[in-house]
Amino acid sequence: MTPIDKDVLSMVNFDANGLVPAIVQSTSGRVLMLAWMNADSLEQTLNIGETVFYSRSRRELWHKGATSGNTQRVLKIELDCDSDALLIQVEEAGPACHTGEESCFDVETLFISGDQ
Amino acid sequence: MTPIDKDVLSMVNFDANGLVPAIVQSTSGRVLMLAWMNADSLEQTLNIGETVFYSRSRRELWHKGATSGNTQRVLKIELDCDSDALLIQVEEAGPACHTGEESCFDVETLFISGDQ
Repeated sequence: MTPIDKDVLSMVNFDANGLVPAIVQSTSGRVLMLAWMNADSLEQTLNIGETVFYSRSRRELWHKGATSGNTQRVLKIELDCDSDALLIQVEEAGPACHTGEESCFDVETLFISGDQ
Repeated sequence: MTPIDKDVLSMVNFDANGLVPAIVQSTSGRVLMLAWMNADSLEQTLNIGETVFYSRSRRELWHKGATSGNTQRVLKIELDCDSDALLIQVEEAGPACHTGEESCFDVETLFISGDQ
């Protein structure tokens, strides 16, 4: 892993609650989940090379896969043009979703275009 | 387009501000942007078959590409397992980002794993 550059944390525009949305994408291209990070969770993510999020409901850090074993190894973190969203490319050890699906977005389709 | 099913709107858990984050992904697999929708913008998106977001800074609906011409035709909308994030597959008419890049995440890379 590359050593943490502290400036990375200062580049992110965290919201009023100190959070930034993080989109997690598999090497397959599938978007796996959207979760939230605070500065601590982003720093830990950079430190251990696996995703660590902030759980808004439990109000605590959450090392993805610590219980399930389905960790996500971080390959790349990109910041968007207004610095308030992250895109994290990962290699998965197992399904991202607690339902057992690969992606949290595999659960419900709201709309499919009729003219695809 | 499929006619709007009003139930779609009631399936989404909008946050305390009436918003839901929407991840926009190209047919190429590239994640283009993260934007926000309220119920009105989601309804308009379903009505016109192109992305319509809610601008938090301008506090108004924003039909993506109305000015630039770079509209996004909606192919599919998926809801995540806790119903508080959308993944929208689109066909792009042009770059998603106001910088001219295809993706808003093309602007800044925070981290690349050294052992990819």
